[in-house]
Amino acid sequence: MLMDPWISFTTDYGLEDGFVAACHGVIARLAPAARVIDVTHLVPPGDIGRGAHVLAQTVPSLPRGVHLAVVDPGVGTARRPIAIEAADGGFLVGPDNGLLIPAAEALGGIRRAVHLTNAAWFAPDVSRTFHGRDVFAPVAARLAAGADLSLAGSATAALVRLPPPFLEVTPSGVVASVLTVDRFGNLQLASPGSFPGGVVTVNGAPAVSGGTFGDAPAGGLVVFTDSADYLAVAVNGGSAAELLGVRAGDRVTIVHAT
Amino acid sequence: MLMDPWISFTTDYGLEDGFVAACHGVIARLAPAARVIDVTHLVPPGDIGRGAHVLAQTVPSLPRGVHLAVVDPGVGTARRPIAIEAADGGFLVGPDNGLLIPAAEALGGIRRAVHLTNAAWFAPDVSRTFHGRDVFAPVAARLAAGADLSLAGSATAALVRLPPPFLEVTPSGVVASVLTVDRFGNLQLASPGSFPGGVVTVNGAPAVSGGTFGDAPAGGLVVFTDSADYLAVAVNGGSAAELLGVRAGDRVTIVHAT
Amino acid sequence: MLMDPWISFTTDYGLEDGFVAACHGVIARLAPAARVIDVTHLVPPGDIGRGAHVLAQTVPSLPRGVHLAVVDPGVGTARRPIAIEAADGGFLVGPDNGLLIPAAEALGGIRRAVHLTNAAWFAPDVSRTFHGRDVFAPVAARLAAGADLSLAGSATAALVRLPPPFLEVTPSGVVASVLTVDRFGNLQLASPGSFPGGVVTVNGAPAVSGGTFGDAPAGGLVVFTDSADYLAVAVNGGSAAELLGVRAGDRVTIVHAT
Repeated sequence: MLMDPWISFTTDYGLEDGFVAACHGVIARLAPAARVIDVTHLVPPGDIGRGAHVLAQTVPSLPRGVHLAVVDPGVGTARRPIAIEAADGGFLVGPDNGLLIPAAEALGGIRRAVHLTNAAWFAPDVSRTFHGRDVFAPVAARLAAGADLSLAGSATAALVRLPPPFLEVTPSGVVASVLTVDRFGNLQLASPGSFPGGVVTVNGAPAVSGGTFGDAPAGGLVVFTDSADYLAVAVNGGSAAELLGVRAGDRVTIVHAT
Repeated sequence: MLMDPWISFTTDYGLEDGFVAACHGVIARLAPAARVIDVTHLVPPGDIGRGAHVLAQTVPSLPRGVHLAVVDPGVGTARRPIAIEAADGGFLVGPDNGLLIPAAEALGGIRRAVHLTNAAWFAPDVSRTFHGRDVFAPVAARLAAGADLSLAGSATAALVRLPPPFLEVTPSGVVASVLTVDRFGNLQLASPGSFPGGVVTVNGAPAVSGGTFGDAPAGGLVVFTDSADYLAVAVNGGSAAELLGVRAGDRVTIVHAT
Repeated sequence: MLMDPWISFTTDYGLEDGFVAACHGVIARLAPAARVIDVTHLVPPGDIGRGAHVLAQTVPSLPRGVHLAVVDPGVGTARRPIAIEAADGGFLVGPDNGLLIPAAEALGGIRRAVHLTNAAWFAPDVSRTFHGRDVFAPVAARLAAGADLSLAGSATAALVRLPPPFLEVTPSGVVASVLTVDRFGNLQLASPGSFPGGVVTVNGAPAVSGGTFGDAPAGGLVVFTDSADYLAVAVNGGSAAELLGVRAGDRVTIVHAT
């Protein structure tokens, strides 16, 4: 049982409609003591990879609790609703489409997973198109209130997983896909860890491999290890995404300058 | 008196400025035990109909409490500030411009309405342009803290109402205005309930009347009953608004294919 | 010590990523009883002046507490992390780049300031690029939980300040820079107080100096004192920013019509 029933909440619902608030309302009714931290609701519609990535990067900073995540282009189809107990004792609740796995791994791995089949945990009438409100939020709320996951459905082991992002380490450097572009235009690459310091090129453009933005001159490219311990590319006082013309999913090549 | 002083909050204030936070602050000072669920603050500026609609669709999922809503193009003019007690025992607080009525109806109807005239419930100095902070948030906070609505002003019966959206049921189908376009490009029509299943056309384009997105082929149009029990039009994996070139307020015609 | 540990939170982090939630998570872990009011996270990236202005306008409406603000283009460089105790007994935490000063003044002035040097108050591993999560949120949380500011570092007096915005009072009126353009297109000028009523011109265009939007005809320009007691320019039912073609930082001239 959780002492502080914290729930984090990640979706692609946007902020213009009442979808997010409806889920907050369901939680407030079923687990009035729970407190919700919104991670983001601006995952691009249906972009499971982006949702998985944002959640996985954020959970290490969140209190132990229930992580509710809904990026669910398959709502109303045969895709399964699941809940995962992570190694830290927290839970992840959402669709079985790969969304939850990287966050579970960031929390130390999967202790057990349950296919959510117990309709008594859901809303009385489950709509075909809004499982966030009718399935996932109720399950998250009940777990936050201390209910026993094993009563939510049947144990399952075979979970859907996203294909891994591209990463190739070469003798002269690294080629990696861009996991995410943040608001500042910084590129986070699918490469954990660091790059040796010195003069490098990024997609052919000159750059400095250093520790932070300020290691490059104003307007200059810098390669560094970001706050989630991934290799990243930024421009000091500017946008690397703009300067290099790349976006999430594109590949970036970093090599030592010769 | 309310056991759990929940306040929902809906505006057109946007998220760039501190307007929403100023109202949260007023609530925190006057009703520190109240907990606020933000419905949306991205109602298009002055769009009372959109605000009314989002709130009405969301309140059934919210805990009983006070629903504070401010979409108020008439701020500083003679339009009245009001509070409504709904049939569920909750309250709605905002301008008397039609904004609150659909939500009150969604909560079972209006039990009583009060023209807010007791300045002792407001901020000491009421600005001419920010009644959210100076009038509505203080009243909502006091109601959430258990104050007696009858002390907030004088009973009133004649409330401003929005014109109803267009809806015409024809022998072959339905013509209805679009209530709202959500983030996914789904169209919600001003037609509660369902449409008989089968092959139909939407504004002349072929579509399937079914239960959810997946009942149409990828990229295909589907007519279904949405999570708020309204007739809706979607594209499986796409945007109906884009495919059909319609937006909120436009009329959509659905007829059985012949 | 604070009775109700309220924390306000202002950044340029945007809402697409998990940065804001990571800071909420840090606060939840270190000060679980603290409650956070988000002011805005949509300060344009690196726009210290805009962040300072929004915060300063909002703090008078917030409960006494800790105001955490991070608009920090100099993260990872020599700029100092600071905390300020304001005259109202609340605190401000953020980078020493001018961001916090106007809010401190709005709270009655600076009682003392501390250069945050005590690493025991920070995250165990401080990243080079995310001091919101690793330095400022932990310090804000500890202050909200009642820790003694004097243990956070060494007293400092010389704080970085932003240049004041342009304001010139002329015999015939006023020339002032635009502090901010809100969501409705209203212009707030760097001129506290009011303008005498009557017929005026704004950048040459005819306008009415009155009390609120409705004092001008529909589509007409109005000069008024806004809800933060600054001189402002609006269009009744429209956008002054659009009509006049001005934006934040531009100068606006208001003179009495002759």
